[in-house]
Amino acid sequence: MRVRNKPWAPKLINAHPELITETPADLRGKWQTRFAKPQPIQIEVGSGKGQFIIEMAKQHPEINYIAIEIQTSVIAVILRKLVEEPLPNLQLCHADGQAVTAFFEPNEIDRLYLNFSDPWPKSRHEKRRLTYKSFLAAYQEVLKPAGQIEFKTDNRGLFEFSLTSMNNFGLHFEQVWLDLHAVVTPEENVETEYEQKFSIHGPIYKIIATFPTK
Amino acid sequence: MRVRNKPWAPKLINAHPELITETPADLRGKWQTRFAKPQPIQIEVGSGKGQFIIEMAKQHPEINYIAIEIQTSVIAVILRKLVEEPLPNLQLCHADGQAVTAFFEPNEIDRLYLNFSDPWPKSRHEKRRLTYKSFLAAYQEVLKPAGQIEFKTDNRGLFEFSLTSMNNFGLHFEQVWLDLHAVVTPEENVETEYEQKFSIHGPIYKIIATFPTK
Repeated sequence: MRVRNKPWAPKLINAHPELITETPADLRGKWQTRFAKPQPIQIEVGSGKGQFIIEMAKQHPEINYIAIEIQTSVIAVILRKLVEEPLPNLQLCHADGQAVTAFFEPNEIDRLYLNFSDPWPKSRHEKRRLTYKSFLAAYQEVLKPAGQIEFKTDNRGLFEFSLTSMNNFGLHFEQVWLDLHAVVTPEENVETEYEQKFSIHGPIYKIIATFPTK
Repeated sequence: MRVRNKPWAPKLINAHPELITETPADLRGKWQTRFAKPQPIQIEVGSGKGQFIIEMAKQHPEINYIAIEIQTSVIAVILRKLVEEPLPNLQLCHADGQAVTAFFEPNEIDRLYLNFSDPWPKSRHEKRRLTYKSFLAAYQEVLKPAGQIEFKTDNRGLFEFSLTSMNNFGLHFEQVWLDLHAVVTPEENVETEYEQKFSIHGPIYKIIATFPTK
């Protein structure tokens, strides 16, 4: 997601160490201490402006959520919303989501969300796609046994790649949607801001899959 | 595929025992005797009027093909074409394709094609879909080790079901297409008559997958 630079972002981030961390490796194995109470932890890798994870946190007070986003001007937008309307079960992590194994201990995470990740359409960039086997191996390491991944995208090429990559990795498909909005209501599907804007242009693809036992 | 009754069909079938069988169980393990020369055998379960398998047989003289179709008036159309233009590497089988294990010995088949199978959209008819696990197990039995299945459909629900069913069965996905006609030329994709007619209405889905070792 490309966004305009927000000069106020670094200052806001520095002012709220209780809501956002920029050194997630220090919290490895200790994430529960950041929340009001210990509960299963679910993470979103690449949270954008946070519409999805904020709504999830509101709908599921019994889950602790962590939004990971690398872009300063983007995660600052989530932070601003969170300052205005505090949520005891949402923490922000300003870091590169690709390094999850440095941020979380094995079994620390309950579920992982990928929403509208960068498609990296060129073959030579295949290894950068967040469903490439090296990333799947990293997710598997931090997820509890039989942990699940939920992945949504509107990019056909990325979804084709991901179905094959996830299958080849040994993930067990729970359900696949090839036109999510044709069958679910907005109440059943928490939308990202991107999804809300771009779903008129074509189908939204989704998969829920379970990792094989390590 | 629903077709008008063809009064000439049974007579034509009876007249050409060298091209078509109605008792395929008698040929179990002996299919190579039906062809001009022994070559890898590929089958299509539900061949319709045969446009796909006839074109495949023409393009690949190094493969022996068997078209399986249950409807008399439909397979008779293939037979009529074959009488007009003989192909030494195509045999017809007028029978229920669901019973493949009765027709073929283990390892007798090299590759299996399913094209635009009946979607059976109601949940209670799930077991009738040709990618249901019981059928996958039957295909696995007759296919050689690491045998492949190629499956095309325009039915979104059937493809969603099939991706999950094939993954859960342990099939290894080689490639998935979520809009086949957007990326392949007619030369790269042998079309069925149904596909030619209905692809303007929406995407054609395709998967190539390899069976796990028994």
